[in-house]
Amino acid sequence: MKKVNLYESGEFGDQSFKRLLVHDSAYFKIINFNFKAGQELPVHAHDIEGQVSLVVIEGEGEFLGKDGAAFPAKPGDVVISDIAEPHGLRAKTDLRLLVTIAPPI
Amino acid sequence: MKKVNLYESGEFGDQSFKRLLVHDSAYFKIINFNFKAGQELPVHAHDIEGQVSLVVIEGEGEFLGKDGAAFPAKPGDVVISDIAEPHGLRAKTDLRLLVTIAPPI
Repeated sequence: MKKVNLYESGEFGDQSFKRLLVHDSAYFKIINFNFKAGQELPVHAHDIEGQVSLVVIEGEGEFLGKDGAAFPAKPGDVVISDIAEPHGLRAKTDLRLLVTIAPPI
Repeated sequence: MKKVNLYESGEFGDQSFKRLLVHDSAYFKIINFNFKAGQELPVHAHDIEGQVSLVVIEGEGEFLGKDGAAFPAKPGDVVISDIAEPHGLRAKTDLRLLVTIAPPI
């Protein structure tokens, strides 16, 4: 067993969002992204099999999708997307996001 | 894309913890467990390949392991365990937990 606390380990950066690799195995990859207000993970997609979950731990913002789609992101939100489907996030306040990718890429 | 909000959809029960299936696919299974103070997911293990992540969304308690091991659980904690390794959780306050299992079982 391994434990990480996102509030203690996850850092924020003035220049761009910060990324903490929480776990990487043959089964899934878990990454914590921390955004300061106004920072953004641009919409992106990878043409491969698999899915990604995006969990908002803290903060408010918008999930981003294809063709400029944007829908509210708030604490407790869990979004599941195919890796091949465009996805991203824009923070309106400081925001902690937990991302799980399976299979890992 | 699919979105679920754990605070809006995840329910608590007086008799035992409640379980919300958030997502199930070929890649991973995502389940939200909600415990009232004092409720417990007993230590268990499955003799199969794969790993599970346990994320404390809200509340305080203890992660449980083999041989009676217990260590603190608080918001922002992410625990990763092999599915074959004994794991469980006991809630000291009302507690929301998000569990991701890969590959799904």
